[in-house]
Amino acid sequence: MKRKGILVVVSGFSGAGKGTLMKNLVKTYDNYALSISMTTRQPREGEEEGREYFFVSEETFKEKMGQDGLIEFACYCGNYYGTPREYVETQLEMGKDVLLEIEIQGALKVKKKYPAALLIFVMPPSAEQLKKRLAGRGTETPEVIEKRLCRALEEAKGIESYDYIVVNDDLEMCTRELHSIIRAAHNAVGRNEEWIENMRQELNVLVKGEK
Amino acid sequence: MKRKGILVVVSGFSGAGKGTLMKNLVKTYDNYALSISMTTRQPREGEEEGREYFFVSEETFKEKMGQDGLIEFACYCGNYYGTPREYVETQLEMGKDVLLEIEIQGALKVKKKYPAALLIFVMPPSAEQLKKRLAGRGTETPEVIEKRLCRALEEAKGIESYDYIVVNDDLEMCTRELHSIIRAAHNAVGRNEEWIENMRQELNVLVKGEK
Repeated sequence: MKRKGILVVVSGFSGAGKGTLMKNLVKTYDNYALSISMTTRQPREGEEEGREYFFVSEETFKEKMGQDGLIEFACYCGNYYGTPREYVETQLEMGKDVLLEIEIQGALKVKKKYPAALLIFVMPPSAEQLKKRLAGRGTETPEVIEKRLCRALEEAKGIESYDYIVVNDDLEMCTRELHSIIRAAHNAVGRNEEWIENMRQELNVLVKGEK
Repeated sequence: MKRKGILVVVSGFSGAGKGTLMKNLVKTYDNYALSISMTTRQPREGEEEGREYFFVSEETFKEKMGQDGLIEFACYCGNYYGTPREYVETQLEMGKDVLLEIEIQGALKVKKKYPAALLIFVMPPSAEQLKKRLAGRGTETPEVIEKRLCRALEEAKGIESYDYIVVNDDLEMCTRELHSIIRAAHNAVGRNEEWIENMRQELNVLVKGEK
């Protein structure tokens, strides 16, 4: 089968560990390309250009927007964030499965533009675990933790828009599970219509040839 | 996540090697139960009661039918073939993924009764390969081979009713692929509604508790 890349959108509650999961996926298997977002916010300490984000000016960002150069974008706290289209489409063409880590609103926008996109939601093993993880970072105030739990509750309402969930209990197991899901998606009948049609034509020629 | 068994229907052209594939799947992984059909036809040499089929009288078969004891049944060449319901449902309840090897008409009947069933179609790598395999058995006359190819062409029209295809080129690879597909299906949002709803309620309690 000719292998076309799949656009994989990964969302999940803050604290579900989706960032680590995706880095591990890319490290473990070689068929993935991780899409890097573009943002107008300032780089934080330790962040590298082209690794966490492409850091650009608002002018550059809006120019990209104007050229339809972003698959989706959003504005938080006065900063723009968006997914550059070119990288995604080039990698898909090359047969790579492209990973986008975005929140639910962005995910739905992507699904609208790319109906073949695969939407996966990363869950913590339990709500209690989520709270522990958020608290365990030790850097957050109770108010911030509460805010994140509220946000999780809000986001949980949209899970039915996703295709699959994975439960991030054990990182390695979850990585394998995520890989399984994406790998399986390549075999969906809807992604192989050309191949199936070709098989039909081959069979037809054989049968007609037999007569 | 609570693991419920999935009813997996496997079809494929004669010569695509689905029988071998399913035996290998059951041998390699321990989460599968292979459903055995019931038939009124006579056992052939080498066939064992309860391995290839449950061999029963027409009277017994019709009794089963009358008690709604068969998931699907069909009549070929004067013999009845059917899938006993009890074994399938018991195994599903126990969390086993139950494999049914049946042809397309039966597959569609199963899907109607069990909309959550996963339908997988096994394909040969090419039509040419299929012909070679059919001829390679050495036991078939050209007429039989032609008939099988005609039938394959007929069945190929229904592939769009299936969820996934697998290409049986290399047995071990195809077995892994099939396993991946079934494993991934367990993570589908639609199969985890209860778990998701439970997570929502837990989050809700936590958030309300925080306030």
